[in-house]
Amino acid sequence: MFYLIGLGLGDASDITVKGLDIVKKCKRVYLEAYTSILTVGKEALEEYYGREVILADREMVESMSDELLNECDKEDIAFLVVGDPLGATTHTDLILRAKEKGIEFRVVHNASIMNAVGCCGLQLYNYGETVSIVFWTDTWKPESFFDKIQKNRDTEMHTLCLLDIKVKEQSIENLMRGRKVFEPPRYMSVNQAAEQILEVVRNRKASGDTPSSDTAITEDTLCVGLSRVGAESQQIVTATLQEMTSVDLGGPLHSLVIPGHMHPLEIDMLSLYASSTKVKDILQSLQPTK
Amino acid sequence: MFYLIGLGLGDASDITVKGLDIVKKCKRVYLEAYTSILTVGKEALEEYYGREVILADREMVESMSDELLNECDKEDIAFLVVGDPLGATTHTDLILRAKEKGIEFRVVHNASIMNAVGCCGLQLYNYGETVSIVFWTDTWKPESFFDKIQKNRDTEMHTLCLLDIKVKEQSIENLMRGRKVFEPPRYMSVNQAAEQILEVVRNRKASGDTPSSDTAITEDTLCVGLSRVGAESQQIVTATLQEMTSVDLGGPLHSLVIPGHMHPLEIDMLSLYASSTKVKDILQSLQPTK
Repeated sequence: MFYLIGLGLGDASDITVKGLDIVKKCKRVYLEAYTSILTVGKEALEEYYGREVILADREMVESMSDELLNECDKEDIAFLVVGDPLGATTHTDLILRAKEKGIEFRVVHNASIMNAVGCCGLQLYNYGETVSIVFWTDTWKPESFFDKIQKNRDTEMHTLCLLDIKVKEQSIENLMRGRKVFEPPRYMSVNQAAEQILEVVRNRKASGDTPSSDTAITEDTLCVGLSRVGAESQQIVTATLQEMTSVDLGGPLHSLVIPGHMHPLEIDMLSLYASSTKVKDILQSLQPTK
Repeated sequence: MFYLIGLGLGDASDITVKGLDIVKKCKRVYLEAYTSILTVGKEALEEYYGREVILADREMVESMSDELLNECDKEDIAFLVVGDPLGATTHTDLILRAKEKGIEFRVVHNASIMNAVGCCGLQLYNYGETVSIVFWTDTWKPESFFDKIQKNRDTEMHTLCLLDIKVKEQSIENLMRGRKVFEPPRYMSVNQAAEQILEVVRNRKASGDTPSSDTAITEDTLCVGLSRVGAESQQIVTATLQEMTSVDLGGPLHSLVIPGHMHPLEIDMLSLYASSTKVKDILQSLQPTK
């Protein structure tokens, strides 16, 4: 049997009892290590599970998936994923391959940022398309994420922005020389995400594209920064985009939410996390007069 | 401390290890019993936890929330919610009241249908607004859910439809006589949901409103029915809306998904669950020619 097990968010104890029982009895356990991280590493998980865990990076999963799945014919193999295993197509590919080989699989679900983001107080029902914000380079600055956020706002929907993670990156020099030397991992902060959004705002203004609608994204647009959701050290801050460029939310992972139209209770919840009197005043002004 | 703990989906063992540890040490444990259900009841949970659990219906939570929160001043109280505690504003109200009273709270997240629906193979990133389909009565047949699904399809987004749950309902006679006698609980099936959607399709046609766009919802529109997501007895079926009116997915809870634009891998995943050759052919025709 091939088990895909969600680890949830936070630390080792966020696995479900069902998931932990399976991890303990499996022949081999792989930990997917390229789409997300917990606040603890592989060693802490090994200690918690009382067994060995094999780190699986993207290259390994893609090149070994046949081998990995072949083992499941004879024995139980678990593949651990931070959050829930099936949010994006990244891992559905493994399921399709398992099905093709006639291998049985089972999914053990858990919390992921896609539902745990509810902690900021914005209703999950009212989120539109989820957006990924990638690290810009000097020569590659895609702006499509901005248009998706704007589209969500225009239809009154909130937007969850997932922020880029770069692990096992090679410098261009190392890549060209074929040296398997990797750069330290990078995790986009809410500061960087807000900076990139504001750069698009400025670019659009400079090119004369200044929409006057009250859903248009500006420096004063409210947003919610979240870090280490589900962990004890979790932080949530409501700020303007301008303020969000300098808020300190500590270590990774960070996520950013841009609200659309808000229900009075949603406004009350965001007020709990307001970074400044200015933000409290903006939120207050959004409340329908009673 | 006031703990809001998600139970996930499925059975008692879908609680997280962190959640279980808290449940065991709390002074009192309430089980929210009106927005969702597991495949097991209160007794199974009590046995699994080795302790008493107090059922809390909507009336009790609303009338007792002050009392409930006051206790948290002195001792640890847990409030258990099927799925994740913070998907909808239902429970954020409790958090706002706790904050007002200066009571500390903590949330233990878990899987909910909002992210576990990823199991059908449609990417969570591409879902639009979530829709609730309520039981129609003879005199009350709201159609707004239909327009939301259509809006999502027009912008290429998938739609998760949450199906109505009625617990502790009183008949009009019992209500008028003030008798606290309750009807048996009702859970909407995918059959009933598909029926209601098709009735709107027919209503619109009868009133001459027949959109010609290829995203328009018709009898042949594909949809995905899911039951008991996360449980061993989980079922997933891809069918046309017409077929979905007669598919047997067994006991509650059911959910329905109406896909928008699909990525080739998403089409492959839905094909795994196709109810008929007709559905397989429709899916095949959606694949971009290679």
